[in-house]
Amino acid sequence: MQLAVSTVIFALRDPDRRSARTALDAPHPVLSLPLVCRVREPYDGFWALPGGPLRGEEGLTDAAARTLEETTGLRPTYLEQLYAFGEPDRSGATAAEPGERVVSVVYWALVSQHEAARARVGQNVRWLAADQLPDLAFDHNLIVDYALWRLRTKVEYSRIAHAFLGEHFTLRELREVHELVLQRELDPANFRRQVEASDAVVPTESFRTGGRHRPARLYRYNTAIAPVDLGPLAAPPTTPEPSPTPPATRSSR
Amino acid sequence: MQLAVSTVIFALRDPDRRSARTALDAPHPVLSLPLVCRVREPYDGFWALPGGPLRGEEGLTDAAARTLEETTGLRPTYLEQLYAFGEPDRSGATAAEPGERVVSVVYWALVSQHEAARARVGQNVRWLAADQLPDLAFDHNLIVDYALWRLRTKVEYSRIAHAFLGEHFTLRELREVHELVLQRELDPANFRRQVEASDAVVPTESFRTGGRHRPARLYRYNTAIAPVDLGPLAAPPTTPEPSPTPPATRSSR
Repeated sequence: MQLAVSTVIFALRDPDRRSARTALDAPHPVLSLPLVCRVREPYDGFWALPGGPLRGEEGLTDAAARTLEETTGLRPTYLEQLYAFGEPDRSGATAAEPGERVVSVVYWALVSQHEAARARVGQNVRWLAADQLPDLAFDHNLIVDYALWRLRTKVEYSRIAHAFLGEHFTLRELREVHELVLQRELDPANFRRQVEASDAVVPTESFRTGGRHRPARLYRYNTAIAPVDLGPLAAPPTTPEPSPTPPATRSSR
Repeated sequence: MQLAVSTVIFALRDPDRRSARTALDAPHPVLSLPLVCRVREPYDGFWALPGGPLRGEEGLTDAAARTLEETTGLRPTYLEQLYAFGEPDRSGATAAEPGERVVSVVYWALVSQHEAARARVGQNVRWLAADQLPDLAFDHNLIVDYALWRLRTKVEYSRIAHAFLGEHFTLRELREVHELVLQRELDPANFRRQVEASDAVVPTESFRTGGRHRPARLYRYNTAIAPVDLGPLAAPPTTPEPSPTPPATRSSR
């Protein structure tokens, strides 16, 4: 029995120029996740979630932060345990490798658009649209579907959209994040009323200028309200330092 | 590295006669959980959550259902994965047992009052009040606190109170479950209005009679609405068959 840790990493990314070429309207950011191409059996040549085995003296959350940083170079603004997947037949072990059962503790992470654009992404890593995935290795399609469900449920009652946006954002930007995550249009006036009534965000004295829109006031999340994002176990949003090589084993919280 | 599965099992149970003797008012049911007394080191003599190691060809949820049934004889009406606990130092391994690191995938379960009263509970198993626990083995106090947080969060937006009540219940009974779980009094008229406005429950043509109250209409959950209780991964409520062998009293890390 092996224990591995994997992470579903979401970001809103501008689509590739190649796919934009065929689009008639202006390209919108797309909910995307980075995947790693496997270079050995089982599932040689298939895309898989970034991850790796749990090390001897490492906590689960630390292992998730380490493996996603090693693979993708990304530093998430939000990192939370999703689910432990442990069906006996999920490892895809061949007859030549009996007993190679793997239980995966899976995390999900959000990174900002800025971070997603900045990060070096290795040769075997590619961003793919969350809703147009090919057949992935192992049970990773199921895992991504579950992470999408969690993201879409949680964006409606917590402030995790913040993790995509950075500290300050316009109400239009906040609505667009909700629309891209939920994959449906929201009425701008209704959205504004609901957000303002909820006390979840507060206006700042700054404005976003430039672009094709009128100057728009910037908002921030209301830190006076206790967030429901994270349970009592959760550590604050993890921003791991870039790993030295070889990466050090971090102490756990 | 070992992988174990443990379960936090909640039920509303009438308090022991011994504790009721000192109470002036009529005893209310108490949110309780069954714990197993450990009979070996580490934590010899401490109470621990029921559980055990994951078997070779067994899924995680199946292992949770099997170990809780073997230990307590209970058949839950609700069983869901809670969290994987894997801090390196949580196993309490002594210097004599180095490398005995244990990662526990923890489930939480609800059982009805009827089931809690019916089940045979072995010599090494005892029901304890969830809010008055002694120091438990390993990190099990932390685990119970997290399960309580999940229960209290979830009872407010899903229909899991149902799992304590059986299929039919009066609005008073439903409110009392909410009060006992949330540990605060709820205004009966407000509660009735909110429940009726939510479409979550529907009236039946039956009434609860007898006792010191007027006959009260029985309600059931509205099965026309998709429940938010369970994510897309969850299996239907598990009702394992009684185990053919006498229950072992086993505890897990």
